[in-house]
Amino acid sequence: MTAALFEIDARAGKARAGVLHLAHGTVRTPAFVPLASTATVKSLAAHEVEDLGYEMVLGNTFHLFLQPGHELIARMGGLHDYMGWGRPIITDSGGFQVFSMGHGSVAEEIKRRRGDRESRVLSIDEEGVRFRSYVDGAERFMGPETSMEIQAALGSDIALAFDECTPFHSGRDYTARSTERTHRWLDRCVAWHREHGPGGQFLFGIVQGGVFEDLRRASAERVAAADVAGIAVGGSLGREKAEMYEVVGWSVAPLPDTAPRHLLGIGDVDDLLAGVASGIDTFDCAIPTRLGRHGTALVADPGSRWRLDLTKQAWAESREPIAADCPCTACREHTRGYLHYLARIGELTAARLITVHNLTFIAALMRGIRQAIVDARLDEYSRGILEGASPY
Amino acid sequence: MTAALFEIDARAGKARAGVLHLAHGTVRTPAFVPLASTATVKSLAAHEVEDLGYEMVLGNTFHLFLQPGHELIARMGGLHDYMGWGRPIITDSGGFQVFSMGHGSVAEEIKRRRGDRESRVLSIDEEGVRFRSYVDGAERFMGPETSMEIQAALGSDIALAFDECTPFHSGRDYTARSTERTHRWLDRCVAWHREHGPGGQFLFGIVQGGVFEDLRRASAERVAAADVAGIAVGGSLGREKAEMYEVVGWSVAPLPDTAPRHLLGIGDVDDLLAGVASGIDTFDCAIPTRLGRHGTALVADPGSRWRLDLTKQAWAESREPIAADCPCTACREHTRGYLHYLARIGELTAARLITVHNLTFIAALMRGIRQAIVDARLDEYSRGILEGASPY
Repeated sequence: MTAALFEIDARAGKARAGVLHLAHGTVRTPAFVPLASTATVKSLAAHEVEDLGYEMVLGNTFHLFLQPGHELIARMGGLHDYMGWGRPIITDSGGFQVFSMGHGSVAEEIKRRRGDRESRVLSIDEEGVRFRSYVDGAERFMGPETSMEIQAALGSDIALAFDECTPFHSGRDYTARSTERTHRWLDRCVAWHREHGPGGQFLFGIVQGGVFEDLRRASAERVAAADVAGIAVGGSLGREKAEMYEVVGWSVAPLPDTAPRHLLGIGDVDDLLAGVASGIDTFDCAIPTRLGRHGTALVADPGSRWRLDLTKQAWAESREPIAADCPCTACREHTRGYLHYLARIGELTAARLITVHNLTFIAALMRGIRQAIVDARLDEYSRGILEGASPY
Repeated sequence: MTAALFEIDARAGKARAGVLHLAHGTVRTPAFVPLASTATVKSLAAHEVEDLGYEMVLGNTFHLFLQPGHELIARMGGLHDYMGWGRPIITDSGGFQVFSMGHGSVAEEIKRRRGDRESRVLSIDEEGVRFRSYVDGAERFMGPETSMEIQAALGSDIALAFDECTPFHSGRDYTARSTERTHRWLDRCVAWHREHGPGGQFLFGIVQGGVFEDLRRASAERVAAADVAGIAVGGSLGREKAEMYEVVGWSVAPLPDTAPRHLLGIGDVDDLLAGVASGIDTFDCAIPTRLGRHGTALVADPGSRWRLDLTKQAWAESREPIAADCPCTACREHTRGYLHYLARIGELTAARLITVHNLTFIAALMRGIRQAIVDARLDEYSRGILEGASPY
C-alpha cells in the first residue's frame, strides 16, 4: 500500500472522510465519480463537470480501446489532454464490458446505439477474452496485460486490474473458479504495472466473489494482500438492496483501513449512503447521467426512489421547477412542463439540462455526506436524506 | 407602418445598422436569429443563447402547433415564459413547413426523427391547408387565421403572415397564382391581427414571387402597401447565389426604407454579407445549428464555404482548436481531434460544443458587420471576410 495516496480526515463508524492525492490533483471523499466512458460526460464540456464540483471522472478502457484507440489517445498526450480534463481520472479495466457481452447482457447503451453491430465474445480462457468489436466487426483480444497497457497509454491516475465480472445468475462453482482466475489476473496486472506502469498511476485490485460470503471475504483478503494501492468492489452484488449491503460489507471487512475503497457501478441515493456507512470512499455509476438523458430527474423523494419521470403526462403543464431549492440551470430557469415537452420530443436540450440537474443533486449529496462525517452527524444526515430531506 | 418599431442608426449604401424596439426588448441589426423551432435552440439552455450575444430567436408555428400545442403554451404564460427566454421572439407562419410537405420535401429534420410518421398534405385551397400531423397522424388544418391565432397564443414579438412558400421547380403560372393567394391570405392575416392580435405583437408580411422579377417586385409593392410593421422575404430564391442575390434585390427595392426587412432561411456567410448589402436587417437559418449537430464547424475559409467537416479522418489526430482566435468553449478547451472523435461516435457533447462554436462565429460576424456599417467601412469588412478574414 502506498501511504501517500490516501489521507483520512474524519471518521463516523466505518465511514471515512478523506482526500485522495493523485497525479492530477486531489479528490475529497466520499466522492461520486461521473462516467466519462467515451472521454466525455455525455452532453457536458469537461470544464462544466469541474464547475459542478466533481474532482474525478471515470474513463472506459473497453470503449476507448475500440474507438479511437489507446495508441491514438497516447499520441494526443493521454486521456487528460485528449478530453481537456486536468483533474484525476480513474479508468475501469474493461472487464465489465468484455464479460457483459459474453454473459449475454451487452451494456444497454451500446445496444441502443449500435443496433446489430453488437460486440460478441468469441472465447474466454486463462489468457483473456477474444471478442468481436462493435465498431468494425474486427476480432480483438483483451487480457490482463492488454488492459494494463491500455490504461497506461490512457495515463489515468487510477487503473483497475482486469477482472471477470460474474453475472448475477452464476452459481457458486462458476463464481469460485472465476474469482480465482480474477486473482491470477490481478497478479499479472501487478507484475505488468510494476514493470511498465506510468509514473504516478496507482493500481487498484478488484474484489469479486459474487453473492457468496466466504468467496467475498477470501477475495478481499487476497486482493488486499497484493501489491495494490487501493481496492475496488465489483461484480454482482445481489438481488436486493439488503443483499447488496451485506455483500459490500463482506467485501470491505477484510480490507486494510488505510487503503481507499471504490464501489463499482453503484449510484442510487440510498446505496451511496449505505456504501459510505460501510466504508466505501468513491463510487461511479451511470445512473445520474443516464437517467438524465432519458428524462428522469433526481429529487428528494425516497418514495419514488429519488426519481421524477419528467416524461409523464402529469408534468405537461407544471410551472414548478424540478426542485425549488436546486441551484442548477434547469431548476433556476425552467419548469417541469417545459422539460417534459423537451424530453418527450427527444431534444438534446432536455438530455443536457436534466443531466446537469442530476449531477448537481449528487454533488450536493456527496458534499453533505462528507460534511456530516466531519461534523460527526452522519447517521442523522443519512436518516434525513432517507426520509426525504433535500441535499441542497 | 409603425414608426416606433425600427430605428436606423447608420447606413452604408443600402445596408443599415438599426435597432428593433420590440415588446421584449431591443434587437440590434443586422442580426442573425437562431432557430428555436421546438422552443429551444437545440442543445442550449435559453440563457446560454443570450450569453452568446443573441437578442432574438425564431419559434416555429407549425411544430409548436402540433406539439405541445399553442393552447398549452398560452396556459403556461406564452412562449417566452414557456422556454425561459425573456428577449424578443419572431415566429414564422407555419407556411414553409406546411407547404414543404405538400411539395414533396418534408423538412430534413422531421424526416430524420420521425421516420414513417411524416406529415402529409391532404388538400390545399383558398381556405388553407389540411394535413396529417407527424405527431399522431390526426388530420389538422392551418389557414391564415389559424396561423395568426397560434402566433397570438404564443405571444411572439413578431408574427409572420401565412404564405405559400412556392417550391423551386414551380413554373411562372403556378408561382403567379400562388403569390396572388399569398397576398389574399396576407389581407386575412392583417384583418385577424388588427382585431385579435395581442398588444405589442408586430405583424410582418412575406414577399413571394419565386425567381420572377415582375412577380417579386409586384409582391413587394403589394406587401409594402398592406398594414404590416415589417416585411420578410421568403420563398424560392433561385438556383445559384448570383440568382439569389438578384431575387433579394428585386424583393427589397420596392420596400419603404423605414420598415425592417427579414430574410427567411438564409445564413451562409457570403449570403449574410450580400443580404446586408441589399438592405436586409435580420436573418434566420438552420445552418449554424444544424451543421453543428452534424459535426461541421464554421471557419474563416471561403474556399470551403466557411465549413470545416470535423468528421473527416484528417482531423483524428489534430491538436489544433477549430479556430485559435475563437473565444468559445470548444476552441478554448478542445482540439479538432477530440471533436472529430465525439462527432464520429454521435456524442451529444459534440453536437453541443460545435453548435456553441458556430453560434459564436455567426454572432462575431454580425457584430463585425454592424460595426463596419457604423464605421462606414462595410465594403472593406465584407471583402475581408470573403477573402478569409476572421470575424473574431
